[in-house]
Amino acid sequence: MSWLDTGAIMAQIGEFLAEDLGRGDITTQATVPDEARGAGRFLAKEDLVVCGLEAAEAVFLHLDGDSPELEPVFNDGDEVAAATVFATQKGYADVLLAGERTALNLIQRLSGIATLTRQFVRAVEGTNAVIVDTRKTTPGLRMLEKYAVTVGGGKNHRLGLDDGVLIKDNHIALAGGVKAAVAMAKQKVGHLHKIEVEIGNWAQLREAITAGADIVMLDNQTPDEAAKLVEMARNLNPNVLIEASGNMNLDTVRSYAEAGVDLISVGKLTHSARAVDISFKIQTI
Amino acid sequence: MSWLDTGAIMAQIGEFLAEDLGRGDITTQATVPDEARGAGRFLAKEDLVVCGLEAAEAVFLHLDGDSPELEPVFNDGDEVAAATVFATQKGYADVLLAGERTALNLIQRLSGIATLTRQFVRAVEGTNAVIVDTRKTTPGLRMLEKYAVTVGGGKNHRLGLDDGVLIKDNHIALAGGVKAAVAMAKQKVGHLHKIEVEIGNWAQLREAITAGADIVMLDNQTPDEAAKLVEMARNLNPNVLIEASGNMNLDTVRSYAEAGVDLISVGKLTHSARAVDISFKIQTI
Amino acid sequence: MSWLDTGAIMAQIGEFLAEDLGRGDITTQATVPDEARGAGRFLAKEDLVVCGLEAAEAVFLHLDGDSPELEPVFNDGDEVAAATVFATQKGYADVLLAGERTALNLIQRLSGIATLTRQFVRAVEGTNAVIVDTRKTTPGLRMLEKYAVTVGGGKNHRLGLDDGVLIKDNHIALAGGVKAAVAMAKQKVGHLHKIEVEIGNWAQLREAITAGADIVMLDNQTPDEAAKLVEMARNLNPNVLIEASGNMNLDTVRSYAEAGVDLISVGKLTHSARAVDISFKIQTI
Amino acid sequence: MSWLDTGAIMAQIGEFLAEDLGRGDITTQATVPDEARGAGRFLAKEDLVVCGLEAAEAVFLHLDGDSPELEPVFNDGDEVAAATVFATQKGYADVLLAGERTALNLIQRLSGIATLTRQFVRAVEGTNAVIVDTRKTTPGLRMLEKYAVTVGGGKNHRLGLDDGVLIKDNHIALAGGVKAAVAMAKQKVGHLHKIEVEIGNWAQLREAITAGADIVMLDNQTPDEAAKLVEMARNLNPNVLIEASGNMNLDTVRSYAEAGVDLISVGKLTHSARAVDISFKIQTI
Amino acid sequence: MSWLDTGAIMAQIGEFLAEDLGRGDITTQATVPDEARGAGRFLAKEDLVVCGLEAAEAVFLHLDGDSPELEPVFNDGDEVAAATVFATQKGYADVLLAGERTALNLIQRLSGIATLTRQFVRAVEGTNAVIVDTRKTTPGLRMLEKYAVTVGGGKNHRLGLDDGVLIKDNHIALAGGVKAAVAMAKQKVGHLHKIEVEIGNWAQLREAITAGADIVMLDNQTPDEAAKLVEMARNLNPNVLIEASGNMNLDTVRSYAEAGVDLISVGKLTHSARAVDISFKIQTI
Amino acid sequence: MSWLDTGAIMAQIGEFLAEDLGRGDITTQATVPDEARGAGRFLAKEDLVVCGLEAAEAVFLHLDGDSPELEPVFNDGDEVAAATVFATQKGYADVLLAGERTALNLIQRLSGIATLTRQFVRAVEGTNAVIVDTRKTTPGLRMLEKYAVTVGGGKNHRLGLDDGVLIKDNHIALAGGVKAAVAMAKQKVGHLHKIEVEIGNWAQLREAITAGADIVMLDNQTPDEAAKLVEMARNLNPNVLIEASGNMNLDTVRSYAEAGVDLISVGKLTHSARAVDISFKIQTI
Repeated sequence: MSWLDTGAIMAQIGEFLAEDLGRGDITTQATVPDEARGAGRFLAKEDLVVCGLEAAEAVFLHLDGDSPELEPVFNDGDEVAAATVFATQKGYADVLLAGERTALNLIQRLSGIATLTRQFVRAVEGTNAVIVDTRKTTPGLRMLEKYAVTVGGGKNHRLGLDDGVLIKDNHIALAGGVKAAVAMAKQKVGHLHKIEVEIGNWAQLREAITAGADIVMLDNQTPDEAAKLVEMARNLNPNVLIEASGNMNLDTVRSYAEAGVDLISVGKLTHSARAVDISFKIQTI
Repeated sequence: MSWLDTGAIMAQIGEFLAEDLGRGDITTQATVPDEARGAGRFLAKEDLVVCGLEAAEAVFLHLDGDSPELEPVFNDGDEVAAATVFATQKGYADVLLAGERTALNLIQRLSGIATLTRQFVRAVEGTNAVIVDTRKTTPGLRMLEKYAVTVGGGKNHRLGLDDGVLIKDNHIALAGGVKAAVAMAKQKVGHLHKIEVEIGNWAQLREAITAGADIVMLDNQTPDEAAKLVEMARNLNPNVLIEASGNMNLDTVRSYAEAGVDLISVGKLTHSARAVDISFKIQTI
Repeated sequence: MSWLDTGAIMAQIGEFLAEDLGRGDITTQATVPDEARGAGRFLAKEDLVVCGLEAAEAVFLHLDGDSPELEPVFNDGDEVAAATVFATQKGYADVLLAGERTALNLIQRLSGIATLTRQFVRAVEGTNAVIVDTRKTTPGLRMLEKYAVTVGGGKNHRLGLDDGVLIKDNHIALAGGVKAAVAMAKQKVGHLHKIEVEIGNWAQLREAITAGADIVMLDNQTPDEAAKLVEMARNLNPNVLIEASGNMNLDTVRSYAEAGVDLISVGKLTHSARAVDISFKIQTI
Repeated sequence: MSWLDTGAIMAQIGEFLAEDLGRGDITTQATVPDEARGAGRFLAKEDLVVCGLEAAEAVFLHLDGDSPELEPVFNDGDEVAAATVFATQKGYADVLLAGERTALNLIQRLSGIATLTRQFVRAVEGTNAVIVDTRKTTPGLRMLEKYAVTVGGGKNHRLGLDDGVLIKDNHIALAGGVKAAVAMAKQKVGHLHKIEVEIGNWAQLREAITAGADIVMLDNQTPDEAAKLVEMARNLNPNVLIEASGNMNLDTVRSYAEAGVDLISVGKLTHSARAVDISFKIQTI
Repeated sequence: MSWLDTGAIMAQIGEFLAEDLGRGDITTQATVPDEARGAGRFLAKEDLVVCGLEAAEAVFLHLDGDSPELEPVFNDGDEVAAATVFATQKGYADVLLAGERTALNLIQRLSGIATLTRQFVRAVEGTNAVIVDTRKTTPGLRMLEKYAVTVGGGKNHRLGLDDGVLIKDNHIALAGGVKAAVAMAKQKVGHLHKIEVEIGNWAQLREAITAGADIVMLDNQTPDEAAKLVEMARNLNPNVLIEASGNMNLDTVRSYAEAGVDLISVGKLTHSARAVDISFKIQTI
Repeated sequence: MSWLDTGAIMAQIGEFLAEDLGRGDITTQATVPDEARGAGRFLAKEDLVVCGLEAAEAVFLHLDGDSPELEPVFNDGDEVAAATVFATQKGYADVLLAGERTALNLIQRLSGIATLTRQFVRAVEGTNAVIVDTRKTTPGLRMLEKYAVTVGGGKNHRLGLDDGVLIKDNHIALAGGVKAAVAMAKQKVGHLHKIEVEIGNWAQLREAITAGADIVMLDNQTPDEAAKLVEMARNLNPNVLIEASGNMNLDTVRSYAEAGVDLISVGKLTHSARAVDISFKIQTI
């Protein structure tokens, strides 16, 4: 049971199609014979990590309940070179044309995220750091984009505000300090949740760990600062998890990893990955 | 009556919030007093074109029907410099915290699109060419992203497959040629629609105009080729509209404009604009 | 891919059934054995043009996902004489009884529209005029009723307010005149849309054509007036399309067609077609 | 608490508007200033019974939550002569234009039903017969159309299949006769429901009354036959209610009433009432 | 056509699953292989009346459209002893685990209601009294719980406020007395509905029957009082139906039945039946 | 921002009302004047803990957007004695009557849960044990019922399957043992989640703690067994949390608390709490 083929995703794909189709694909209705069938080939026009095959297949299945299964040549997570056909979708030509843009919009975006994530994962290879995403996702596409991060080799941070406790500067200010905030969270939140605290300096870090934080997030530190804070944190509690965060890029990420943090969260994986170039050419069959 | 404050957008924002909130913002519920109120300031952290203020306001209004109106310092379409506070949203602190990420995810993306569009519009300033978008939008965000393009100074191409006739290579192949495809479209489509045809060479362009196409789209031509095709097209029908399309970037777009086309469509306005950097700092009041 | 079998229509039929069934067909539940099967025959009780077979079939399919396909004797668009069985639907007797009224309500209305449209189309046979519908459709049934018009031989005018520009007297007044209104529309509306203007006299017609209107609608003119306006319009622009509108009936429509207009729009096709008489008799099998 | 202002009707009106507006009223957006306000007057263009004022008001309220209340000159149920302005709706001009067609489509149809019902009610005035509607309503508009019947002076038959037991010929055949069907219904249906049986001849009528039917429906009898069956039925059970049904028209309905039946059901009240002619003229204010 | 397999129930089960699954069953996703299959056995851990097999099956079918049919050993309505396996559901192990709790929550509650209802039905065996339920059901589960009552051997009272006329003390006070209330109901309510009146004493009972009430409900009377009122009511109208109501329990219910009432309504059947103990053990296959 | 007044709860209350109202409250429509207003008083007919005032208020607000605020005498969580009026709701009489049953069904159930929870909390007073609920809630009412538990003084266990990792016997079997299951969970689940393992004996407990489980659940142990396991567990890891589970009742729960466990989960809080007796008497005002 893949979560990608649940009713929720299918319903959402119905909304995506409705957004594009409106009252119908008037060009295709006017120019393409009803009975024509074709094969549409997904062609990578640059090197990329494939992601989103099930979502693309679901687009065509939504339009035609008898649509044949997508025929993958490569699978989600595979790296393919430019000029590679990585999957083929057969069906009625009018179905292929009506679904083409929605399928491409999904698969180009998801493959873009997977491709960028893979680059970050490669950049920290050999260290203990894990690349994680953030909640800076496209509204409406949270679960699909978080899936793309895992396909790229990253791990997921919180799926939503209910999925974990992360005490940030605003919470600390409103709660009356780090210690008070951690105590309140421990008292009110369910026993299955750990507590993470965003800290901006050594005093906050010490207060957080002393108060019993399970994880600390170092926000916007230089790699050198991070390294120092990691060392001091480990002295206080060798089991504490440490996350680095804040405008990571491919040039700097490794230095944070080498500073000894456990997790590096990268917002641009989802908020600024560009769509990779993929075309869908239909041949009649 | 702005389309941005219609029920449809409000319903969609409800889905965006549900996606992030799940069963609730457990950190804020544990650490922030119910009665605390604050003012959140939207701060540009780089130069940008503002876009999405109504959408951001709607996020907070959805969480709290009595949420006060957003206080704009600048408006959608204004260019603001880095370090500018361009709007303030007041309200209960827990509402501000629960809506912060969704509001930022929207406003950063929309401002990113408006900012990039403005750059393309500037690049063709002084020519007759109009920058238009494509259907390569984020699934679920079509109308918001198309709005951002207009805020940036561009115009909208088709809003969906029902919003105009655009005969592409696949349609031509399935219909049996340009002439047949145009004739079929003229016969079946409502009398209020014009006919646009994507052409790849001079023979197709001549056939399209002779068959009565109202608009031709030059796909993936060099600027020089485009200039020649424009001249030949105008000789056949001085009223025909001409669109250039295909991997436009800020370096090349002006040469297409100078080739004399009427419209230049740019997919990356929506599929690859990066999110601009904006923060939301909350102060208790 | 017929638009009639899309999820949208199926969802709507679910609402129609819910409206009639409420918490269930209590008469049938009490009196009809679960396992009984029957064949329901659609019988024309007057001469009519068949329309709505797919919608009727969908009613039964919605009630029972394993419902057999409807067996058509005639198809949508065929003219059948009174006393003709034009289709048979088999299935469980309780399914046939639960769906009977909803299926009849749909097929009687749609066939009524198709039958009336056919009469109008016949009335202008041999002229160049095309019979078109209006937006005066039953709320909720727009697409089904517009489909019935095409089955009757007519063509569709705008499917909705977003499907074309039609500048009416109220727009003209608010925009500051015909010329201003046309100019505003040309500037703001997408390049794939033509501009139609409703005109009430020769001065408006001239202003509209001079301003670049693609289509003019002659509203509530006599046939003689229409003939004169058509001639004057063609002198200004031989390519302009001309539509006649306003309380058309079967006695007068041909005189408008002979006045030389291209399109005649008839509101009563959809707002006042009476339901044709059709029965559904079930026999056990 | 009027059922007309419940959330259900408002939701349905949202669907009606969405059907017409699609992605927006492009003509009005292009030609009408945002700030313009107007007053739209509903003008009867023929004699009619007003019906649907709340529904029309709800259309504008759905588009603009701050839309002012509709100003009625006459109320639902009033008879107005041609050339009468019976209500005025003020608001933003773009709101009035966007809602005009949907409001008219509703009010013309509902007033048409109320007007026709009033004629049937007049035709039986002075007798004991009550005019009732049927389930032959427009799919999706059941409750609104049944409301229009009451406004016209009729009463409602079953609102849906769950709203009463009506044993018809098909049920009788499948249950194994009138007696068996009535017995099964009495045993299985809730104690608050009466039992009505459709009968085609004297034998069935006797069997139904003897079995304990509370109401009998005389289907497709002549007035003379009806008179005889009424007399015989009253002899068996003076309290039995008697309904006449089948292709009633304004010429024949009184003779059925005079035959002594209690109820006369008229399908055409809802399935074939034509839309009455009403216009909506907007003046700027 | 069982009402249990209609789209409405399936949609509701989708909501129940969404409520429990949220963004997914994270434990199972982490620990259970995708391809593992199992057989889950529903085991009665106390004596009970089985109810809800179709609903349980629907849970697994909703998660996996290819889920095999549930294999019943006993059927809804059967009495099974503690330690009996009464049904088996096979499928993917992750599907069985994800659906387990929702299926159990449904089947334990519904079987609890059926079991309690059976006890009440047994308690009045041999009398003429019928056990009926009330509208005191769990919000959202009305139809499922009313079904469970019938499985237990009871009958359903009103399914909702639109399903019958029951005039209570508040209505009587607001209408101006029993006589006025009955008259108003007879005049306004459809001819297929009977009229029931809740009465608290002999004066009200006489007034209700004299006014033409079809059913009277004796509210909160002792068995002796009830017996007297029954006798007096029968003297006024031998055909009147009589219902007893108010805090019935298994010790007192028979004495009401022996008082001669026709119906005894028991709120606790649905509002306070405890869940019976059932487990679901999964074995790999 | 109370989660109880979010759109989700309001939408759900709309469904609850629709379930009861169907096409309308026909008794009230027939017998109660539109303009009549009343005050409905919620009266405790037994000792109880109040819970659900906001939900009850929302029922009336859903029916009438201008419904006045509920006037509380006591608040959620307060203990009131039999014969206490604890809140009053004013409004139109027809609104009060239409919403009465739905409001009572909610408030009686929620107060029942809060009342039972309070008894369990009292039973363990003075120990370190916390009473927690389970996922054995009524389908559709999860959040409301979990809220009632907190009002009663308990804490919430997992809100759903995505809200925490709880490895049960089935997972252990399918994963290949306790150690493997814990390792898989640690590797795949987000870093903010703790790991809980259900154990049935000492060997499993030791394996779980050694593998790094944060919490262990002792399933179906006697109090003596529990005490021994608690001691052994603390020896292995003094920080491990220990939960006792399995058919707790008011007689036995204290002995588990005294065995030293941290958490005691009680299914019957939600699956078998009976509705407490509350009436709603309306007086005209």
